[in-house]
Amino acid sequence: MQAVSYRNVKLTGGFLKEKQDLNSRVTINAVYDRFYETGRVGAFACRWTPDSKGIPKPHIFWDSDVAKWMEGASYILAKEDRPDLEEKIEKIIDDIEKSQWPDGYVNSYYTAVEPDRRFTERGNHELYCCGHLIEAAIAYYEATGRDRFLSIMRRYADLIEKVFMKENSAAFVTPGHEEIELALVKLWKCTGCDRYLRLARFFLDMRGRNGKDAPMAAAQDAPVAEQRTATGHAVRAAYLYSAMADVGIAEKDERLLDACRAIYEDIVNGKMYITGGTGSTHQNESFTIPYDLEPQKAYAETCAAIGMVFFSHRMLQADGKSDYADTIERELYNGMLSGLSLDGGAFFYENPLEISLPDRKRLAGIGQEHLTETQRVSLFGCSCCPPNLNRILAQLGEYIFGQDGTDICVHQYTGAEMESGNVKVKVETDYPVSGSVRVTQTGASRLRLRIPGWCRSFTLDCPYRMENGYAVIDSPAEKINLTLAMDAQAVFPNPAVRALKGCVAVQKGPVVYCLESGDNGKKLPYQLRVKLPLEAAEQPGIAGLPDLVIRGRELECSGPLYSGTRPESRERMLRMIPYFAFANRGEDSMAVWLAAAEE
Amino acid sequence: MQAVSYRNVKLTGGFLKEKQDLNSRVTINAVYDRFYETGRVGAFACRWTPDSKGIPKPHIFWDSDVAKWMEGASYILAKEDRPDLEEKIEKIIDDIEKSQWPDGYVNSYYTAVEPDRRFTERGNHELYCCGHLIEAAIAYYEATGRDRFLSIMRRYADLIEKVFMKENSAAFVTPGHEEIELALVKLWKCTGCDRYLRLARFFLDMRGRNGKDAPMAAAQDAPVAEQRTATGHAVRAAYLYSAMADVGIAEKDERLLDACRAIYEDIVNGKMYITGGTGSTHQNESFTIPYDLEPQKAYAETCAAIGMVFFSHRMLQADGKSDYADTIERELYNGMLSGLSLDGGAFFYENPLEISLPDRKRLAGIGQEHLTETQRVSLFGCSCCPPNLNRILAQLGEYIFGQDGTDICVHQYTGAEMESGNVKVKVETDYPVSGSVRVTQTGASRLRLRIPGWCRSFTLDCPYRMENGYAVIDSPAEKINLTLAMDAQAVFPNPAVRALKGCVAVQKGPVVYCLESGDNGKKLPYQLRVKLPLEAAEQPGIAGLPDLVIRGRELECSGPLYSGTRPESRERMLRMIPYFAFANRGEDSMAVWLAAAEE
Repeated sequence: MQAVSYRNVKLTGGFLKEKQDLNSRVTINAVYDRFYETGRVGAFACRWTPDSKGIPKPHIFWDSDVAKWMEGASYILAKEDRPDLEEKIEKIIDDIEKSQWPDGYVNSYYTAVEPDRRFTERGNHELYCCGHLIEAAIAYYEATGRDRFLSIMRRYADLIEKVFMKENSAAFVTPGHEEIELALVKLWKCTGCDRYLRLARFFLDMRGRNGKDAPMAAAQDAPVAEQRTATGHAVRAAYLYSAMADVGIAEKDERLLDACRAIYEDIVNGKMYITGGTGSTHQNESFTIPYDLEPQKAYAETCAAIGMVFFSHRMLQADGKSDYADTIERELYNGMLSGLSLDGGAFFYENPLEISLPDRKRLAGIGQEHLTETQRVSLFGCSCCPPNLNRILAQLGEYIFGQDGTDICVHQYTGAEMESGNVKVKVETDYPVSGSVRVTQTGASRLRLRIPGWCRSFTLDCPYRMENGYAVIDSPAEKINLTLAMDAQAVFPNPAVRALKGCVAVQKGPVVYCLESGDNGKKLPYQLRVKLPLEAAEQPGIAGLPDLVIRGRELECSGPLYSGTRPESRERMLRMIPYFAFANRGEDSMAVWLAAAEE
Repeated sequence: MQAVSYRNVKLTGGFLKEKQDLNSRVTINAVYDRFYETGRVGAFACRWTPDSKGIPKPHIFWDSDVAKWMEGASYILAKEDRPDLEEKIEKIIDDIEKSQWPDGYVNSYYTAVEPDRRFTERGNHELYCCGHLIEAAIAYYEATGRDRFLSIMRRYADLIEKVFMKENSAAFVTPGHEEIELALVKLWKCTGCDRYLRLARFFLDMRGRNGKDAPMAAAQDAPVAEQRTATGHAVRAAYLYSAMADVGIAEKDERLLDACRAIYEDIVNGKMYITGGTGSTHQNESFTIPYDLEPQKAYAETCAAIGMVFFSHRMLQADGKSDYADTIERELYNGMLSGLSLDGGAFFYENPLEISLPDRKRLAGIGQEHLTETQRVSLFGCSCCPPNLNRILAQLGEYIFGQDGTDICVHQYTGAEMESGNVKVKVETDYPVSGSVRVTQTGASRLRLRIPGWCRSFTLDCPYRMENGYAVIDSPAEKINLTLAMDAQAVFPNPAVRALKGCVAVQKGPVVYCLESGDNGKKLPYQLRVKLPLEAAEQPGIAGLPDLVIRGRELECSGPLYSGTRPESRERMLRMIPYFAFANRGEDSMAVWLAAAEE
């Protein structure tokens, strides 16, 4: 069962389509403009010198920023007539082409700033930048059929093969920031040239197995096939695990896939916030230990959510189990989407699950080290997340369907059509507003409809059997109706999560809800409790999805610090909004997890 | 209403008496032996030179360690015939006397190591060491009537007055680590010499009001009368606030006392663990913000608990309100006592409210910065807490009674007798095992018996009126019986404490209980819940007080990380021990706060 390429899928309506449209209408331009203003776009012209005035000095990771934007813009180009984007991309490729060294090397920082120090610093993101440029070149080639950029990057990949694999002449063996590994697998698939797959395999195999690599604080530096737990920098880790899955699938290497399976379980069973966020500490932006999921200190970088989509998507191809698609859904509707403002022009890098404004102000007053942003911004110094949103939103079609000949899987529910050979499948739904889904098909010998893990009950108007979390319909009719029960529900954490003792969250379908103080009489989240059993009413919301109004209790905080009697409380209705929409109406306190008040 | 001096009070039996006896039998010797072995005791001989072999180099705070031991030993000497302690103290005084500079200066570090750098570094604990030596000299003078040590320290205090107050010739104005201020007030009281009170006042008044003091990371560097919240290093803060209260009382300075009142409220209403611990972060060992009381990260230094006893004790003299005595009791039975092993020979510096051994091992594996000790040790590099326990345990008598002529207050309930003029008061009780208290008196015109804040009901076999939290008995009979209800009770945190959402603690009388995994089928604390309403049975315990057996539920942690249904749980009995007794039977996971399970 393989993913149906975004090129064969069209989003036709509904929530995800709106986000995709917002990306091509607003976000792709907003990111370009910020990158243009800061000199990122012009960096490949390599005009910076120590004496140049007014030309920003390139940063070691700028190439990756621009490359991710180019990749995202290319996915848009593949679907839409966008001469504006095409012109911008072509101009950047002009600069890249001119900047390429005779031996194939491409890097705006080293070319302009430290030309004598190529391939000397493991932590300096050179191969990471190359990986993103390769992905961009492939996307642009697939969108336009033009191979100029792809040829440039093949020459660079060939140089890397020579320097790292054949000559072993670089100062390090494997990259400090993983990414090139998965890009090389894509390059192999795009070109059919086996050397790129072998080079990807080389970078995987050499990890933790060479005497040359200086240890990196946040790296996954154990031999990859022996890794069983998620460690280190959460984004780098997800990119590495994605490449491990890619190579495992390509080479039918069950040892690699077993490592991926164990790592995946380690993440989803103990190191993932309910929003899909990963990375429990700002220190090295990294994984910590199982069940360390304090909501206010959540780092949960937007890129880490996107990385988990990549990793889960590959594992879904490997094993076909719905749990992987559940994780993709969890990321898409929560931890990934919270990175983007409702207007499409501002971004979160970190996505905490709780913000207490008063605490934050007091902590700032005593000089505490790390305080998360409370408002999305248009650009970060390290601005990896915005163009990552560009590319995943433009390529959402990649995650909807799976295919094995005429055996078709529907992984995600959203208005969409796919076409492949004689098979056509159309999905009509207002999901996740409701759980009503109509699937229309021609040419499919079998349909597999995912029953989400959060779904307590569903109805299907035809015979089916369950397999790997999918309702399997052999010889399906032309039209099939699926209804997923989608009432708001209370979600309980595993009791091993110490920071969430006695807490409950609210979820409707795949969407995690949160409470903002502005909607709730300025009462701070931790003064409010959710009353169980849960009863929720829906009201028109701020984010294209209903807000929830649920029964709760307001607790009185004016009492003593410790008391032999319960704090006083009174009934009140709580208004909850989708988590991804928090912080879109000014600064506010926010919480996903609330104390549970029993009847 | 003044405290009745420990010299006029004798502990006669019961729990506190046992701890006091343990101190004079074991702890005082254990601390001396460690200080002897490490060179602290011999440091005043000042035999260290850069070329000396085998002589440990003195540390800037060693004088304070030895001084606190001398002070504690002196309180024992005041009550017991202890020639061994007397001989040790005399020998140290010999060395101090020989090391004293012609101008009066005393400091083993600067004398031996940096004689040219006296009074140059605000952060180097010089005045702090002097303060502790003054307190020791007073205690020894009071115990023996011999004034050799006191005269030495008066000469040093006179030098400090000259250098700091008259000449302003030191490189700083106020100490980085407060302590000398309260010592100077004691010196004034002991000698009647007003200059020492004025010098204490000088150090208070100059704080935050001079251009010379380099800022200290953890200092309380605002003008003292303007301070309203507890900030910075929790031990230094408590010593400062104690001195502010001392001077406020001595000079009837309501501005200073108002600052003390506001700071006290700030602490007990938002910055104090249920154990009385203060200091929510290991960073600078300091106060943070209100309601930041995460149990596992509690720093709660033993010295900070002792400092809070000092501060509260002074405020009790100033205002006569029982809340101050409640805080003293909270510290004595919990956050102070947890610093000492049951065998009297080992110590905690930090007193966390929760330990998860599995988490700790995993966190150590990923190089997390600060992990608390899980077992008491016999010595610390910075070994301030053990001799602080020596002195407070030897001087427990100081905290029992208050007096205004023949108007007598009983602040703490323990087997004790006081005698002052014609007044004799005797308290008989097995408190805190039970709440039955018999008070026998002659000569008291009025008795004031504290009704603890935790006490839900009490009976008294004579007429009384309530005033400031005390049951006031005018013209008391010779014998009075008080019974305080002392059943185990659930304690609820203020809902503003985010880390304790949905949690409950268990307390019996003044004693906070905790759960250790070894007593509870190796189940980790966070897998166990307390069932409400609370029912508790008492069983013979490990710590001279009953253990509690309460109904609870054991939660199943093998399920998914997030679930639409509650984790499975089954009824089980939980065994709880007094918090102060945790970690006396090997390494264990421990928790004070548990999730509350409702019926």
